[in-house]
Amino acid sequence: MKDMIEDHRVIAEPWYRPLADEVALFEAAYAARMPVMLKGPTGCGKTRFVEHMAWRLGKPLVTVACNEDMTASDLVGRFLLDASGTRWQDGPLAFAARHGAICYLDEIVEARQDTTVVIHPLTDGRRVLPLEKKGELLKAHPDFHLVISYNPGYQSLMKDLKQSTKQRFGALDFSWPEARVEVEIVAHEAGVETATAEKLVDIGARARNLKGHGLDEGVSTRMLVHAGQLIARGVAPIAACTMAITRPITDDMDMRDALDAAVATFF
Amino acid sequence: MKDMIEDHRVIAEPWYRPLADEVALFEAAYAARMPVMLKGPTGCGKTRFVEHMAWRLGKPLVTVACNEDMTASDLVGRFLLDASGTRWQDGPLAFAARHGAICYLDEIVEARQDTTVVIHPLTDGRRVLPLEKKGELLKAHPDFHLVISYNPGYQSLMKDLKQSTKQRFGALDFSWPEARVEVEIVAHEAGVETATAEKLVDIGARARNLKGHGLDEGVSTRMLVHAGQLIARGVAPIAACTMAITRPITDDMDMRDALDAAVATFF
Amino acid sequence: MKDMIEDHRVIAEPWYRPLADEVALFEAAYAARMPVMLKGPTGCGKTRFVEHMAWRLGKPLVTVACNEDMTASDLVGRFLLDASGTRWQDGPLAFAARHGAICYLDEIVEARQDTTVVIHPLTDGRRVLPLEKKGELLKAHPDFHLVISYNPGYQSLMKDLKQSTKQRFGALDFSWPEARVEVEIVAHEAGVETATAEKLVDIGARARNLKGHGLDEGVSTRMLVHAGQLIARGVAPIAACTMAITRPITDDMDMRDALDAAVATFF
Amino acid sequence: MKDMIEDHRVIAEPWYRPLADEVALFEAAYAARMPVMLKGPTGCGKTRFVEHMAWRLGKPLVTVACNEDMTASDLVGRFLLDASGTRWQDGPLAFAARHGAICYLDEIVEARQDTTVVIHPLTDGRRVLPLEKKGELLKAHPDFHLVISYNPGYQSLMKDLKQSTKQRFGALDFSWPEARVEVEIVAHEAGVETATAEKLVDIGARARNLKGHGLDEGVSTRMLVHAGQLIARGVAPIAACTMAITRPITDDMDMRDALDAAVATFF
Amino acid sequence: MKDMIEDHRVIAEPWYRPLADEVALFEAAYAARMPVMLKGPTGCGKTRFVEHMAWRLGKPLVTVACNEDMTASDLVGRFLLDASGTRWQDGPLAFAARHGAICYLDEIVEARQDTTVVIHPLTDGRRVLPLEKKGELLKAHPDFHLVISYNPGYQSLMKDLKQSTKQRFGALDFSWPEARVEVEIVAHEAGVETATAEKLVDIGARARNLKGHGLDEGVSTRMLVHAGQLIARGVAPIAACTMAITRPITDDMDMRDALDAAVATFF
Amino acid sequence: MKDMIEDHRVIAEPWYRPLADEVALFEAAYAARMPVMLKGPTGCGKTRFVEHMAWRLGKPLVTVACNEDMTASDLVGRFLLDASGTRWQDGPLAFAARHGAICYLDEIVEARQDTTVVIHPLTDGRRVLPLEKKGELLKAHPDFHLVISYNPGYQSLMKDLKQSTKQRFGALDFSWPEARVEVEIVAHEAGVETATAEKLVDIGARARNLKGHGLDEGVSTRMLVHAGQLIARGVAPIAACTMAITRPITDDMDMRDALDAAVATFF
Repeated sequence: MKDMIEDHRVIAEPWYRPLADEVALFEAAYAARMPVMLKGPTGCGKTRFVEHMAWRLGKPLVTVACNEDMTASDLVGRFLLDASGTRWQDGPLAFAARHGAICYLDEIVEARQDTTVVIHPLTDGRRVLPLEKKGELLKAHPDFHLVISYNPGYQSLMKDLKQSTKQRFGALDFSWPEARVEVEIVAHEAGVETATAEKLVDIGARARNLKGHGLDEGVSTRMLVHAGQLIARGVAPIAACTMAITRPITDDMDMRDALDAAVATFF
Repeated sequence: MKDMIEDHRVIAEPWYRPLADEVALFEAAYAARMPVMLKGPTGCGKTRFVEHMAWRLGKPLVTVACNEDMTASDLVGRFLLDASGTRWQDGPLAFAARHGAICYLDEIVEARQDTTVVIHPLTDGRRVLPLEKKGELLKAHPDFHLVISYNPGYQSLMKDLKQSTKQRFGALDFSWPEARVEVEIVAHEAGVETATAEKLVDIGARARNLKGHGLDEGVSTRMLVHAGQLIARGVAPIAACTMAITRPITDDMDMRDALDAAVATFF
Repeated sequence: MKDMIEDHRVIAEPWYRPLADEVALFEAAYAARMPVMLKGPTGCGKTRFVEHMAWRLGKPLVTVACNEDMTASDLVGRFLLDASGTRWQDGPLAFAARHGAICYLDEIVEARQDTTVVIHPLTDGRRVLPLEKKGELLKAHPDFHLVISYNPGYQSLMKDLKQSTKQRFGALDFSWPEARVEVEIVAHEAGVETATAEKLVDIGARARNLKGHGLDEGVSTRMLVHAGQLIARGVAPIAACTMAITRPITDDMDMRDALDAAVATFF
Repeated sequence: MKDMIEDHRVIAEPWYRPLADEVALFEAAYAARMPVMLKGPTGCGKTRFVEHMAWRLGKPLVTVACNEDMTASDLVGRFLLDASGTRWQDGPLAFAARHGAICYLDEIVEARQDTTVVIHPLTDGRRVLPLEKKGELLKAHPDFHLVISYNPGYQSLMKDLKQSTKQRFGALDFSWPEARVEVEIVAHEAGVETATAEKLVDIGARARNLKGHGLDEGVSTRMLVHAGQLIARGVAPIAACTMAITRPITDDMDMRDALDAAVATFF
Repeated sequence: MKDMIEDHRVIAEPWYRPLADEVALFEAAYAARMPVMLKGPTGCGKTRFVEHMAWRLGKPLVTVACNEDMTASDLVGRFLLDASGTRWQDGPLAFAARHGAICYLDEIVEARQDTTVVIHPLTDGRRVLPLEKKGELLKAHPDFHLVISYNPGYQSLMKDLKQSTKQRFGALDFSWPEARVEVEIVAHEAGVETATAEKLVDIGARARNLKGHGLDEGVSTRMLVHAGQLIARGVAPIAACTMAITRPITDDMDMRDALDAAVATFF
Repeated sequence: MKDMIEDHRVIAEPWYRPLADEVALFEAAYAARMPVMLKGPTGCGKTRFVEHMAWRLGKPLVTVACNEDMTASDLVGRFLLDASGTRWQDGPLAFAARHGAICYLDEIVEARQDTTVVIHPLTDGRRVLPLEKKGELLKAHPDFHLVISYNPGYQSLMKDLKQSTKQRFGALDFSWPEARVEVEIVAHEAGVETATAEKLVDIGARARNLKGHGLDEGVSTRMLVHAGQLIARGVAPIAACTMAITRPITDDMDMRDALDAAVATFF
């Protein structure tokens, strides 16, 4: 088990371009072991940020992609059959709490609202996790830290965190990086020249203006990187933008025309 | 099993600042073994109060974070596979009843309304828990006591305790502490000076006035403590309040502006 | 198994204050083995009555707190894994039928309507329970008797007994005892003097008048006993009534004021 | 297994008072192995009729009380764990088909509509039951016969048999017996004199006139027998009618008054 | 397993009276291994046709009565516990695909729409069935053929086949046979003389005219055969028609009168 | 396990007629390991395209027919019982990630929206799949690639991919081939002469014009191939078109007449 936790250590520094003071705030929250909530749209770098902080703090990182089929047992653990009967298998939350990892519950708003209450005893002064099925009261390792991510754009009556959950976290807002920074990111990640990256970032800015006028969500930095990667492999820029940006984001014909026009303006 | 119950003993006195006569009332209810219901908003100290009372009465404390996926078996117990067949594993309710612990069902209103009927035979003169799957009629230990918490703000047609459940409990109301007391709590818990704690409590009071004007629930004492903890670790007060108070509590831009203005008034 | 049924024998006479001719009617129904349905509001003494009758008839009592997660298997039984394979475990209904106990299905209206059909073959001339999973046709012990309770106040389109179930039972109506009787009950159960019990019963009568004007259900005898128990342990009467009567029953501020005024009238 | 089927043989002749030509029609249907559907209100004698026919034809009877939690596996069978691995356990339908019993699916309309399709291959020329989990194509014993019961009063959009199921059955209608016959039944079953039985049947007739004017379903013959049984054990006739007839059937106060008046007319 | 497939071989020729060119079209579809969908109302002979074709083509026939509780595992297979661990058990679809049978999914529209996608890889050029739980990519036997049936009268928004399923099948329409043919069928199947069969077919034709005027579905050929079978066993024709035709098909009193009148016209 | 992956290798070149530059774009996406989403109506060749690309790239292909009963465990894997306890069984997604296959999730929009989040960590820079139940962080093989298909025509409020999923993919649009190309495909796949294929393609074009005027979806190329296959086996062209085109696609009588007229125009 000790060895298994090592698999979760982030060996190489994940490249991360800070947007503001988020690194220092996260470090202070970690020092106080105050659980942290990362808010922001899809594809803006929340996951990368957590990986970077885990590397920077030298702690293993256990990531859980939350989904509504996830039960409390999936987080906490369960008994498995073995040659000699049953064996307890820590779920990722118990595993992280026991071994002092950072536990990152990605898109927690997807999980059933009430499943999330199992994290409550880990997020106040108690810092315990009752493994009720095992009859163990797991006391969290001093290094353990809990991070969740949350996309306010998905927020709805049915799917929102409860106030009693929200109030247990400090929150950091994430958004699209400003143009200068995003160019740097796209050029670095896609391996294209700055001139190309600038055009892609311009296209992204245009597309984000369409949000609310028919697009559910703006174009993410990830999509711009995708287009850059295709260009870097020799695909014609317009075809690359079509495949990586306009086609995935919408099936609405008018919206596609508007996006195609934005692409044609720059390439 | 006897040893396991010791894990649930509260060794060190949990710091608790009484608000009124709740300690004496709880003691009288315990003396009559009348089950107790704690009502009040999130983060106002209900859990800490139960821990304090368990310590004061010298009884082990078994806490269950209720959720709607919780089945009767999760409370009562189940059979587990073993090398020699099946072995009965008490659930937390049976465990507490058998060993004379205080069983605290936190946020019971989250549990499926009808799951909660399993506590009925423990809450009247019978003081028994039928372990139907095991065929045992568990008679509660004389020290056993049942405590539930309940947030009236969450009350809805779908999620409310049944009258036949409510009438089995004595109830204690909890609310935000008065300013003088809350300053004391924030200073103690966050490790900040009284002057800082006073400012944080003033901010909290302003924010609570917004409840009903766009905020679902007021700012909890816990959030004020969080802000204090960041300040104590060198984060600038405004950034600390942003991360610990305004960002977690709402995504509404107008509300954020109002909260930010409240913060700016005092720091 | 024979021994286990002894655990369900009611050794000491449960104190019960008859309200009308319910004892004689129950005895006649038992003599005809006609299943009995007890109707009435929560906390008026139905459970105590069944315990009393079980003691009086000298039969073991198997009580099941019904809930909507209860499956037919929970009532009838299931196979459990054992060192040598599977072992059949009677559910409480089969257990009672096999050993000649009185089986009391408490709040049966909570159970899934269709789960209740499993009791049908036990309630007519056949008096059998098919254990389909075991392939056994269990013939009920001659002493076996079935009692259910039912709160007409909970009745709704979704949750009502089917006519084909209701028509299999004789019914006894229960309600709040008349004042004179209730004083006797409160004084006996709470251990307070008659004068105090009279005041509590007066408060109860006032509160019951509020039913339909904002209270879902009146104040039960049990709550009056609770208040008496706190008073008997030295709590001031008003504080005792607050904790045991007004706070559990409602969160509505106007209703609380009305109830507080009723309490203040008498103490 | 052969022995277990003997448990289902109806040894003593169940007393049955024919209403019309239903015995001869059932015999012809059995001769053609045409599945039979018994339609009629609750408590009018459908179950007793099937028991009588099973006795008359000298075939074992396997009865299943249908409910909406019943799965196809509950009818067909499943694998159970055993010392040496898994063992197949026939469900009641497979058990009856294999051993040549009459299988009576009581209140089939309660079962999930689509669960009932598993009976289809047994009800046409194929007369087989695929035990898909076991990989066996069970050919029905030549004596096997399928009978279902069905209460048209429960029929609703959600719960009705599919046409493709209905068309596989011949149908026999059942209703309340005419007065002369019902008197005979009540006197015989309850052990009361004819004069008393006549009064009870008169009360039943009055009550049935209220159906549609506030009563969901009329008073069944079974309820009249219940009242008679109490009278036979010395309960006063009015108290007996109250317990056995008016209280079980309705909680509506006006309806109770009307029923009480009907009782008072005759006793 | 090889032997078990023999149980599914249709030994005796199932009597089938062709209505049009359906036999030749099915043979051509089989030659191209184009999956076939049989459409038509209940009881018009679809199942008999498949049995006849299986006999004619000399292939085993595996029939599945679809229902909405059916899971993908029920079709594909699952692991079963055994003395030496787990053993894979082919579901009927895998069983038929492996051994070259005709697999007939009867009333497929009853199955959960999305469960049906498991048949997709068997219905195009791939002709494979991924046994994902077993990790096997089952290649269908060259003789394997897939047939489904489908009642357009049941079609609804909730229960319809997806276009992506429908387009994988060739379709054959079935309907009630023309009078001349139906007389032949009824006489043959029921064992009655032609004159009686003609009267029954006339009654059927009248009843089918009522479809849409209060009858959900017309009278099936199967019901006419049922009536004939009762007559052949000596039941009076009117009683036979009542039991086999009018009582099963409707509980509506006006409709019953209309049907009874139709019966009285001919007998 | 190594051997089992070989079962998934595409040995013979699957015949594929490119429509535009989709082969080159897929190759560039594969070079960047950018996940690919294939969009388009049913039966237009998406599955065949993936098979062709797997053959062209020399990678094994693991196909999953998605459905809403599919759980995360069905994709990721589970423990199976074995003679010596439990054994881990990779699900198809883990299997493909471990062995460097192309994983094709067909009709992913059918899967429960939130089940699809399990693919997220495989679709960004991490390229990992947490096997939470096993406690393994599976790092994807460098050859692993993820492809999903998606029918925009099925898109609805309930069933659409989340933006956070869509933005992780490059997208390729598929549609019906232009007439010249479709003739080539039908002639090749059905084995009919070009003249016949042209007529079938003309019929298809007519039928597609009816889409939106009563047809949910146009006639697919697959259906034209089906008709050709029947013709190639000697079925008269009109009967072939009836069975393969008009009968499967609609039960609406007007629409059938319109389609029959289209068929009659060309044959």
